[in-house]
Amino acid sequence: MKTGIVIRKIPRAPKETIEALGRCGVATIHEAMGRAGLMKPYLRPIYGGAVCAGSAVTVLAQPGDNWMIHVAVEQCQPGDVLVVAVTADNTDGMFGELLATSAVAHGVRGLVIDAGCRDVAALTAMRFPVWSRAISARGTVKATLGSVNVPVVCAGAEVQAGDVIVADDDGIVVVPRASAAEVLAASNARMAKEDIKRARLSSGELGLDIENMRPKLDALGLKYFDTIEEAGRQ
Amino acid sequence: MKTGIVIRKIPRAPKETIEALGRCGVATIHEAMGRAGLMKPYLRPIYGGAVCAGSAVTVLAQPGDNWMIHVAVEQCQPGDVLVVAVTADNTDGMFGELLATSAVAHGVRGLVIDAGCRDVAALTAMRFPVWSRAISARGTVKATLGSVNVPVVCAGAEVQAGDVIVADDDGIVVVPRASAAEVLAASNARMAKEDIKRARLSSGELGLDIENMRPKLDALGLKYFDTIEEAGRQ
Amino acid sequence: MKTGIVIRKIPRAPKETIEALGRCGVATIHEAMGRAGLMKPYLRPIYGGAVCAGSAVTVLAQPGDNWMIHVAVEQCQPGDVLVVAVTADNTDGMFGELLATSAVAHGVRGLVIDAGCRDVAALTAMRFPVWSRAISARGTVKATLGSVNVPVVCAGAEVQAGDVIVADDDGIVVVPRASAAEVLAASNARMAKEDIKRARLSSGELGLDIENMRPKLDALGLKYFDTIEEAGRQ
Amino acid sequence: MKTGIVIRKIPRAPKETIEALGRCGVATIHEAMGRAGLMKPYLRPIYGGAVCAGSAVTVLAQPGDNWMIHVAVEQCQPGDVLVVAVTADNTDGMFGELLATSAVAHGVRGLVIDAGCRDVAALTAMRFPVWSRAISARGTVKATLGSVNVPVVCAGAEVQAGDVIVADDDGIVVVPRASAAEVLAASNARMAKEDIKRARLSSGELGLDIENMRPKLDALGLKYFDTIEEAGRQ
Amino acid sequence: MKTGIVIRKIPRAPKETIEALGRCGVATIHEAMGRAGLMKPYLRPIYGGAVCAGSAVTVLAQPGDNWMIHVAVEQCQPGDVLVVAVTADNTDGMFGELLATSAVAHGVRGLVIDAGCRDVAALTAMRFPVWSRAISARGTVKATLGSVNVPVVCAGAEVQAGDVIVADDDGIVVVPRASAAEVLAASNARMAKEDIKRARLSSGELGLDIENMRPKLDALGLKYFDTIEEAGRQ
Amino acid sequence: MKTGIVIRKIPRAPKETIEALGRCGVATIHEAMGRAGLMKPYLRPIYGGAVCAGSAVTVLAQPGDNWMIHVAVEQCQPGDVLVVAVTADNTDGMFGELLATSAVAHGVRGLVIDAGCRDVAALTAMRFPVWSRAISARGTVKATLGSVNVPVVCAGAEVQAGDVIVADDDGIVVVPRASAAEVLAASNARMAKEDIKRARLSSGELGLDIENMRPKLDALGLKYFDTIEEAGRQ
Repeated sequence: MKTGIVIRKIPRAPKETIEALGRCGVATIHEAMGRAGLMKPYLRPIYGGAVCAGSAVTVLAQPGDNWMIHVAVEQCQPGDVLVVAVTADNTDGMFGELLATSAVAHGVRGLVIDAGCRDVAALTAMRFPVWSRAISARGTVKATLGSVNVPVVCAGAEVQAGDVIVADDDGIVVVPRASAAEVLAASNARMAKEDIKRARLSSGELGLDIENMRPKLDALGLKYFDTIEEAGRQ
Repeated sequence: MKTGIVIRKIPRAPKETIEALGRCGVATIHEAMGRAGLMKPYLRPIYGGAVCAGSAVTVLAQPGDNWMIHVAVEQCQPGDVLVVAVTADNTDGMFGELLATSAVAHGVRGLVIDAGCRDVAALTAMRFPVWSRAISARGTVKATLGSVNVPVVCAGAEVQAGDVIVADDDGIVVVPRASAAEVLAASNARMAKEDIKRARLSSGELGLDIENMRPKLDALGLKYFDTIEEAGRQ
Repeated sequence: MKTGIVIRKIPRAPKETIEALGRCGVATIHEAMGRAGLMKPYLRPIYGGAVCAGSAVTVLAQPGDNWMIHVAVEQCQPGDVLVVAVTADNTDGMFGELLATSAVAHGVRGLVIDAGCRDVAALTAMRFPVWSRAISARGTVKATLGSVNVPVVCAGAEVQAGDVIVADDDGIVVVPRASAAEVLAASNARMAKEDIKRARLSSGELGLDIENMRPKLDALGLKYFDTIEEAGRQ
Repeated sequence: MKTGIVIRKIPRAPKETIEALGRCGVATIHEAMGRAGLMKPYLRPIYGGAVCAGSAVTVLAQPGDNWMIHVAVEQCQPGDVLVVAVTADNTDGMFGELLATSAVAHGVRGLVIDAGCRDVAALTAMRFPVWSRAISARGTVKATLGSVNVPVVCAGAEVQAGDVIVADDDGIVVVPRASAAEVLAASNARMAKEDIKRARLSSGELGLDIENMRPKLDALGLKYFDTIEEAGRQ
Repeated sequence: MKTGIVIRKIPRAPKETIEALGRCGVATIHEAMGRAGLMKPYLRPIYGGAVCAGSAVTVLAQPGDNWMIHVAVEQCQPGDVLVVAVTADNTDGMFGELLATSAVAHGVRGLVIDAGCRDVAALTAMRFPVWSRAISARGTVKATLGSVNVPVVCAGAEVQAGDVIVADDDGIVVVPRASAAEVLAASNARMAKEDIKRARLSSGELGLDIENMRPKLDALGLKYFDTIEEAGRQ
Repeated sequence: MKTGIVIRKIPRAPKETIEALGRCGVATIHEAMGRAGLMKPYLRPIYGGAVCAGSAVTVLAQPGDNWMIHVAVEQCQPGDVLVVAVTADNTDGMFGELLATSAVAHGVRGLVIDAGCRDVAALTAMRFPVWSRAISARGTVKATLGSVNVPVVCAGAEVQAGDVIVADDDGIVVVPRASAAEVLAASNARMAKEDIKRARLSSGELGLDIENMRPKLDALGLKYFDTIEEAGRQ
């Protein structure tokens, strides 16, 4: 794939699906997808309690160069989330208050960036959520082309433009647009099951019993002893 | 030591000793132990102000596999702290809201885990304190045996089942059960001394004078100059 | 430069210049200096919202040895900031509540340390701001000489005693004393320009248009396509 | 994508294309692809001078579990390269001499693994090239399903089964199978150009002149001074 | 445990057991111990092909202070291996040619150090094997007491004085002295089994068949498909 | 300091001084300077046995942009060493065979770069020594100005153009030009002393005795015990 490409029209999942996925949370969705779709945990929110769900507008940028984010804002619609991948590991502050002001003006809900972020006091005051690999005041140049809305690998996860991004305190999950409805259904089913399990665990029942783990543990050879000395005699 | 072992009966320090150690704080206890017993500083609390003191129930787990934590909960008594070591560096979210619900139902006071943790928004709302090396939504399997209540090395510190664990914003310290009373006495003595020192420092007295450091600095050759140019002429 | 040297008289920038720089913020000052002067982003504040501006009193210390900080406090005047460099990467808790009490008694405004810090709950309660590379209860010795008020490299930035240190949630910037007034003027000019830009971005205008980026992007060959398929046919 | 899937029939690029790409080297191919396709540089060869080119047989494994590599070997043909991605960062020794013996018996040319490798003395003696993120004797379990020949993200790069993998001392590049011929042509063209450039540089000509950089540097404002003092006066 | 302690008489395993363990290699011993006893993989040999087996003389040192290594050399006997733990993460060059000369004169076979090493060209020429976490010329002081021959945690593994240390290109394993003979027997048994397995794998037989993995994979639900499209239809 | 500046005339130390420093080695020079001047140990040579001594031509570059190295080569004289600092942490392959060919044609002896390097097989064959923080095939752009021969901080050490750079397997040391002769004298004196010490250590004498450490250890309270049990009874 050549760089220097901007794609203007991207498919997006239905709004109500995106909103509903946002209510499921990252861990539930990741499990419902068969334990897939997570970005690496080095991306962290800039403030506690940040949550975000939207359609990915993807950016591929050069380290230390935020030019393509400006190009990307023009392609954003209300409800979008900017997802910025960088061609090499970098912590420069590629995004700050001014770009956030511009993003908010175009309805962008948040940013996921495999690089640094700055002006975090101002961004926190605006409640504009950002997940980044670093906080750094280091400024950037505007010198080299990248691309917008091409497939990118961001923090170890593949993202296509229009995929649903859900982010919270636990990290970021990427839901392929085509399977958003199916993942939502599976997430809701999982949450219902967890409600039941939570009630049982809260009453003191053990996961060992609820999930019937004892026979399998026994089959694999788990042994119980009263004391460590007794175990040593085996 | 073979894996696949669960020890049911572990010795515990007296409750009042544990509570009193909890009031001393991690830094004081670590100093009172002769600067020993600390876990590595990469373990961090999931929320600010978290504090915890209790008896260690130890877990040795495989990376990405939280099965043994379920086994361990059954061995917990009110006042215990789960201490989870993993056989290789790992950041997966091996503990979350459901396991915390189960732990709370059995009186567990907190978790120290040399791996990742998830559902941190829910855990924070529950005020269930966790010290972990990462926050990650990554789910885990239940496939491989480990052990419970065997000696483990967790974040660089050796922990025996029943040792007293004290954790706060500064980190985690392990107090060998047999020396808990002695460490408590030394910690209290240290706090008393620090109260006096704090008052003197607050009035403007210098550590140089309170601790009589000047003669030793002088003996080692510390030299004072008015300006850097003057120093260069030496 | 030999170690074991303490310089007593250091030049300082005018108070009003330092205060005014403190109001500009780290990112603005760094940009106004031509994107220079930043420490590496691994130094982080111990609590959110920490801000600090003052004259650097520099310390060069041995890893795990905080003796020279005691020596440095005697050289501090109201309005100073301690800047501690260490001869090797280290995360020990070289600074805590007692040293902070002493520092506050001598008018010190904050600490920047390329090592660890402890007693962070107490420091936060005191609102004594610290930027450190780690939080660690690990105690330190007082055994080896270093120097005070000599030039140091701290977290990748050169600091001379008396340079202006400005620190906030975004990191730490070092303003050479001799250029403090010039940097302040440039920072103020930048803030005025950013106020105008912020208003335009907030109204929905694009950075692409405000900064007239389109011709340069076009010259470098940026291409727009409706769909990814269309781009692939090129 | 569910886990627990093995794909038996994968497309492969023509042998002569693969061989020819192997002669181009990683840096050249990466440049010829428009600076794309590289894995992250933390993957390193276990011995100097290792080179490898072949068709990717992809593996998605659980951390600390090498079961799926055994499953993958059955799917390998002479000329293939095993590419192992892991669902979480892990350094365990998931591959060693026995698996290498099996791989060699099925014509596998090398291994790229985003985890650890062991028996490196034996692998080096066999001249079986491995690129890994760590060398570790840590043993692994065979407990959890993964997948074979599904698309994976390995060390930050997307790999499809059948893509051409080229690896040498500089790292690993992934050439999408469909564009292998085109990339080969571009790589050969680049090498021809570099031969000419090398000869000119070797004779003392400057890159500044060969690539006509001076006018652009001048336009951007590069200034030459005789001394640093002279520059400071500007 | 207080610091400032030197233990003079330590038990050692029989020489022939140590020699025989040295011939087994680290990975084999680690497996024979039930996948236990390994140090973390960040410790690496300073030259390829380094191998070492001997009795541990343990050292607990302060970061950046190599005084206790001098104290330890006096306690070494021919056939010993120095194992140096440091109270905090540190990469200083705590060991170099002069100390190696002294160690060799006392029959020491090698060094395992959770810190840095220097003079590696000279050490390599002497064929004195060192496993360290860094190579660094950074010099150290002799200012603070530590201990010799007390139990230490080195690179994540507990070591008692007199334990058998085996180190090679794959890392370092610690064999508790009391179980050295038992571990040797298990290691030899494992090597015998591996010889058979190697021969079968070399002939093209699959691990899947040799270890009879297919029924278990099938029971867990592993599915084979001809193509990825076919898998997607499921 | 503004960027976009090239200084043409730099002072250099006398050739014979540089050659003689090169024969002392990095560790000796660092000690002779009072344990100063070292770069951080994450910079490593691309091949074993690399050695280099010369006058620093400094480069300040943007991450992922090697344009300024081309500018710097024109300023190099036979006997110079290129020292490349980057404004943010970066591992891109900013230097390879073509630039090395150009550098060699201008008499450059080696490269120290706080970023990545590529074509390491070719560079090794040329015996062009490079110390870098990574090996990476990642290509770079030529888009943004930096500076040449201004003071830089490279891997934690300050470097002025014309300083003497000595590099070997142990790392890199920066000798300020003005003190090169004095450092050489101190290094030679140190080597003479070490020759004597080496002979005594080789004969079995202990550092404890040669350096008369016992009284100081005793004064600080070091205690000897026959067994660990005896120590515990104290």
